[in-house]
Amino acid sequence: MRVVLVAGTTATAEIEGISAAGSTPALISHTPSADSAILVYGRPVAPLGIQHPTPVSPTGCPTPAVISRAAREVCGFDVTVVDAGLATPTGAPTVDLRTQSDRRMNAEMRTEDAAAVYGGGDIREPVPVPDAAEIFERARGLGGSIPGPLLVGETIPGGTTTALGVLRALGHSFSVSSSFADNPVSLKRRVVREGLEASGLAPGELDDPLDAVQTMGDPVLAASAGLTVGAIEAGTSVTLAGGTQMLTVGVLVRSFSDAPLSLATTSFVADSVSDLSDAANAFDLDLTVTDPEFTDSHVAMERYLAGEAKEGVAMGGVLAAAAGRVGGQTEQQLDAVRERIAVVYDRLLEDDGS
Amino acid sequence: MRVVLVAGTTATAEIEGISAAGSTPALISHTPSADSAILVYGRPVAPLGIQHPTPVSPTGCPTPAVISRAAREVCGFDVTVVDAGLATPTGAPTVDLRTQSDRRMNAEMRTEDAAAVYGGGDIREPVPVPDAAEIFERARGLGGSIPGPLLVGETIPGGTTTALGVLRALGHSFSVSSSFADNPVSLKRRVVREGLEASGLAPGELDDPLDAVQTMGDPVLAASAGLTVGAIEAGTSVTLAGGTQMLTVGVLVRSFSDAPLSLATTSFVADSVSDLSDAANAFDLDLTVTDPEFTDSHVAMERYLAGEAKEGVAMGGVLAAAAGRVGGQTEQQLDAVRERIAVVYDRLLEDDGS
Repeated sequence: MRVVLVAGTTATAEIEGISAAGSTPALISHTPSADSAILVYGRPVAPLGIQHPTPVSPTGCPTPAVISRAAREVCGFDVTVVDAGLATPTGAPTVDLRTQSDRRMNAEMRTEDAAAVYGGGDIREPVPVPDAAEIFERARGLGGSIPGPLLVGETIPGGTTTALGVLRALGHSFSVSSSFADNPVSLKRRVVREGLEASGLAPGELDDPLDAVQTMGDPVLAASAGLTVGAIEAGTSVTLAGGTQMLTVGVLVRSFSDAPLSLATTSFVADSVSDLSDAANAFDLDLTVTDPEFTDSHVAMERYLAGEAKEGVAMGGVLAAAAGRVGGQTEQQLDAVRERIAVVYDRLLEDDGS
Repeated sequence: MRVVLVAGTTATAEIEGISAAGSTPALISHTPSADSAILVYGRPVAPLGIQHPTPVSPTGCPTPAVISRAAREVCGFDVTVVDAGLATPTGAPTVDLRTQSDRRMNAEMRTEDAAAVYGGGDIREPVPVPDAAEIFERARGLGGSIPGPLLVGETIPGGTTTALGVLRALGHSFSVSSSFADNPVSLKRRVVREGLEASGLAPGELDDPLDAVQTMGDPVLAASAGLTVGAIEAGTSVTLAGGTQMLTVGVLVRSFSDAPLSLATTSFVADSVSDLSDAANAFDLDLTVTDPEFTDSHVAMERYLAGEAKEGVAMGGVLAAAAGRVGGQTEQQLDAVRERIAVVYDRLLEDDGS
């Protein structure tokens, strides 16, 4: 089993109140880089002497990378990180899907500064992901040759807002989740409304999935959809590992393939997104919901019980694998994963010098 | 235990008769990209729909990546691939040590075409690796934060010639190995002589190790030395996993640190390079030589017994680890590795449609 973590950024995450994926707004753009290294090495590792702190929410909820890393230390799955527009270098090895000419096009079609810092633009720009189709095709090539079974997950702060934008552009009314305990629904709706206006679109005006990603999405959606389409076209088993962002990837994939496809998420998402099951059914996604049976014995689990984070970094999928339900895994190891979470968390805090 | 595979290219490999790391000269520049994917996935995987064939020498000797991958399937170590100038995209995740500005500088200081295709220039150019110091420092940062114990290995066709160039520029007279059964020693000496002349250097004229890499080396030497220096400065155990190229890395490292450092290579290198042990002693490198006890029962092993390839892709180090001698490994698993080589080789040939 291999987790393919698609990591990237969108300037949409800079909108105040959109994302809890970092203790301060300035740190949010580092989160995907740190998440990648935590999943690969068990701690943030960066070249160039940059050190990323372990991502925590403003209230101290640790990144889902901690949970997924703990599951990896118990279950031993492989990891491939795909760089779909990181804002800051990571020490994790990555497959880079953006060519130099894409980056140039990106820089030319958007402001130089924004393109240098972010993988995807704010969806309130007319064209936040100019190279959506190129990223998709390149990811499709990779997905077609990488050995499975695959769990495809994401790390992109602001990603539920871009997912909402894509769903609305395509005319779907499903809800999306949030890394906040209280989902800032009205803020997200306003951002999406402004984004549609900036792109000259009415809700539901688009049919083409890649047009929707280009005008209202983020590069992680393009890459995740391409990877998944390429893999299932090659007969490789794929589980979309995540919540409403990966559901949106499933919606995009369905424009290309009817092959069997699973969505594995946490009970935290399933319990807070009332129409998740209906949405999965509507797109023929085989839904697996895993309750990690967290307790309040450790702060890392306690914040999840309080409704924070909920999902991300393939957490729902790797927990399902640890429960022996997806990815060809058959052993029940959730108890061991829960114990391991404290070990990984404490090691990370020690590294941060806290 | 983690193998850090430093992968890159040098236009020096284009000189006819220099390298056996590919079935034809045109395929040699693809070898590091394919080697990286074979070690990571067990088969070549590339984005963009490119497919690399499994590298074999003109006589059919498979790349040492096959041996190292077999050892990985038996022993289960982690892998990080460092991109120190690949010529063609790989589907293996990599840590890219070259920034955009380095690439620009490279392109400006050398011909546009050469810089686009190769990581390092022909050593018969005045400055084949303009960004040697930048690569070294960036690798040093990475080495300082990556968890160990580490085995550092290389894949760069033409690398023994660039290693010879660096040794001569620094005034050392050690021999270097070859991927050919018959080492083209006089050709290498001529190339190095021409390289020194092009850089306006007499043998032994340089003291600074990074000046030697910049004028006579390749980017893999710069990155491997930086990684090793950063790691041992951080107290991380490092084994240089390879033959005379990794010996050269050890020579470079000794300008920065006297910390304990091992060199682990195959008996194929040790048996063909008569002064290897003396050279290791001179630079206080703890030498481990592993005889994989190959037999002629399979073509993959037979070509090594005939003196081809000898080493590469960390082969000597991973065999030492499989023998329980380095990297914190204690189990003797060489028998299992030999059996596994046939499995990996046959799977790769099947993928190639042969």
